[in-house]
Amino acid sequence: MIFKMPTHYFLTAGASEGYTRLNAFDGALLQAGIGNTNIVKMSSILPPRCQQLSSIDLPPGALVPAAYAAITSDVPGEIISAAVAIALPEDENQNGLIMEYSGKGERRQIEETVRTMAVEGMMLRGWEIKDLQSIAMECNVANIGTALAAVVLWSPD
Amino acid sequence: MIFKMPTHYFLTAGASEGYTRLNAFDGALLQAGIGNTNIVKMSSILPPRCQQLSSIDLPPGALVPAAYAAITSDVPGEIISAAVAIALPEDENQNGLIMEYSGKGERRQIEETVRTMAVEGMMLRGWEIKDLQSIAMECNVANIGTALAAVVLWSPD
Amino acid sequence: MIFKMPTHYFLTAGASEGYTRLNAFDGALLQAGIGNTNIVKMSSILPPRCQQLSSIDLPPGALVPAAYAAITSDVPGEIISAAVAIALPEDENQNGLIMEYSGKGERRQIEETVRTMAVEGMMLRGWEIKDLQSIAMECNVANIGTALAAVVLWSPD
Repeated sequence: MIFKMPTHYFLTAGASEGYTRLNAFDGALLQAGIGNTNIVKMSSILPPRCQQLSSIDLPPGALVPAAYAAITSDVPGEIISAAVAIALPEDENQNGLIMEYSGKGERRQIEETVRTMAVEGMMLRGWEIKDLQSIAMECNVANIGTALAAVVLWSPD
Repeated sequence: MIFKMPTHYFLTAGASEGYTRLNAFDGALLQAGIGNTNIVKMSSILPPRCQQLSSIDLPPGALVPAAYAAITSDVPGEIISAAVAIALPEDENQNGLIMEYSGKGERRQIEETVRTMAVEGMMLRGWEIKDLQSIAMECNVANIGTALAAVVLWSPD
Repeated sequence: MIFKMPTHYFLTAGASEGYTRLNAFDGALLQAGIGNTNIVKMSSILPPRCQQLSSIDLPPGALVPAAYAAITSDVPGEIISAAVAIALPEDENQNGLIMEYSGKGERRQIEETVRTMAVEGMMLRGWEIKDLQSIAMECNVANIGTALAAVVLWSPD
């Protein structure tokens, strides 16, 4: 393997205003507790038997694989939301499926969509779902705002 | 090095309809045989002496570096295609060059373009081409469809 | 950790014309000295005590984490620029912050913006800045041109 297999994961989310679009994104990562790491975006699988943690104390500057949804808007008053969902399989030898979704609209609606996406993805695989987890974040934009939700993978040692 | 040097590669492609744009993308990855891995996008070099395989049995959830082209459309009846090409060098100490291209249009035309792109990239380096490989996928969109083509890198042990 | 912690970094930039948008991007990577590697995009932290080098002789085909800004235009006569900045902390146990910015406009203006973004990001963290580094590249587009600026992370052994 090129990269080590992730063994642990956690769900997190954040929202922030910022001086520019990237500053707002940076602030949302900070609020989610992953703003001082190097996020490497990946598509979007939870390895079999990956263990959930409530949070992980990531070393500053570490390269961290994550699946995330993020949306940034510079339209004052706009409501934007980002959400991720994980469908966990009945069969523990199978992997879980992560889905990401973001858009204009309230948190509840965006989270509902991403949960349905994860269910659809497991149906496509013909796999039974044991558990469906999700997290979402809403941002009511003042000037430039970002909403972000992420599944972060990790291997502690 | 931060990451291990890839030693093997394979070409693959897929197309799928889906409930959302991301579900269609997920389905295309599945059809390409890489839908249960964590694809990490990279730009776009084949290491020297990398060995081609017809396919690789990737561990579910593994982090897998890949160069890929993907296009998704929600316009029923639209024809979209994605293609990748690899130009392999005469001098085995040099690396190969991967190019990705996608757009509206038929497979043949998109694949032709990506092959020319790889040839142009080798000309820019002043390197002789030993072999030119490519793969392409076409999708005639029903509701929401994705076409995807990829070069996947790997190191088996 | 999934990935090794980077220990060294360098700043680089390039600009190029190309046969397609991706060829122009490839040419800009080549001019920046990183065109024969596999760039893995990450967001955007300099690990604590990371050492600066003027350049690094990267193995061809290696997977290389980098934070970069890039902009491509196919509007002849348009002036585009890309820039990255690193704010280094007073406290050597803290990480540095990398910001990326690109847009239409001259190099000086884009570089000024990205430097302010890095300062703002450190203010958000409440951290003192020891040094502010940046690099920028301008491209006066002939047919299809790319400007690119990058912070490349590495670990030599």
